[in-house]
Amino acid sequence: MNYVIDELEIGQKASFTKTISENDVYLFAGISGDMNPAHLDEEYARSTFFKKRIAHGLIAASLISNVLGMKLPGVGTIWVKQDLEFLAPVYFGDTITATVEIVEVLKDKKKVKVSAYCVNQNGAVVLKGMGIVSPPKVKVE
Amino acid sequence: MNYVIDELEIGQKASFTKTISENDVYLFAGISGDMNPAHLDEEYARSTFFKKRIAHGLIAASLISNVLGMKLPGVGTIWVKQDLEFLAPVYFGDTITATVEIVEVLKDKKKVKVSAYCVNQNGAVVLKGMGIVSPPKVKVE
Repeated sequence: MNYVIDELEIGQKASFTKTISENDVYLFAGISGDMNPAHLDEEYARSTFFKKRIAHGLIAASLISNVLGMKLPGVGTIWVKQDLEFLAPVYFGDTITATVEIVEVLKDKKKVKVSAYCVNQNGAVVLKGMGIVSPPKVKVE
Repeated sequence: MNYVIDELEIGQKASFTKTISENDVYLFAGISGDMNPAHLDEEYARSTFFKKRIAHGLIAASLISNVLGMKLPGVGTIWVKQDLEFLAPVYFGDTITATVEIVEVLKDKKKVKVSAYCVNQNGAVVLKGMGIVSPPKVKVE
């Protein structure tokens, strides 16, 4: 599914929700090589501000990638720019909803500006930031 | 390994290099749920501007997470903010080097500003952006 630029308007939204598992974190550690004990070492994590292991911040961000590339604007979208502000930890078992909202349609530049944010099961915003994407040129059903 | 704020100075750098595999992309698709055919469907990808499957942009960004959380400032670092500008595709088999450089030490705010970038085996910058991190308070050897 996707939307070409003429189908996009301010206020349009899409979301994706996923419970972040220990598996996600351990696989992400392998992909990134980021073996920071804050993510992998429960004994170490107990001594930190967060008191237990937390997910890599980019795992929440990956759910934004999901929405942009599959829903809004969807297949064919090119991600040009994204600002990320990490606001709160994501614990194993947290259910994160990523939402993308169109905030500006730059028709002359063939780009759209989006507001993206991730919220946990308690309604806390864990991640937010503005992004710029180039929507697909061709409509796919 | 890590550096507390008094050990950090402008110009300090650290890097991490990894060849991005098909495995990385398929695992990241599972973690994110981002099944965009640009990453997973070689037939579809042939019809795109990039001509073949490309890695998710956040996989390159994950190597920045690696450097920040393990090398500079290292263990105990909290990632506060990161801007990402996706400049070029990462193809399967590309070898990406992520570098983090300290550009400002904000002692009063107990934060540092970093410049982060990812370069491929041909020297092309695929991703760059400024970030803000809170360095560890306690020195770990």
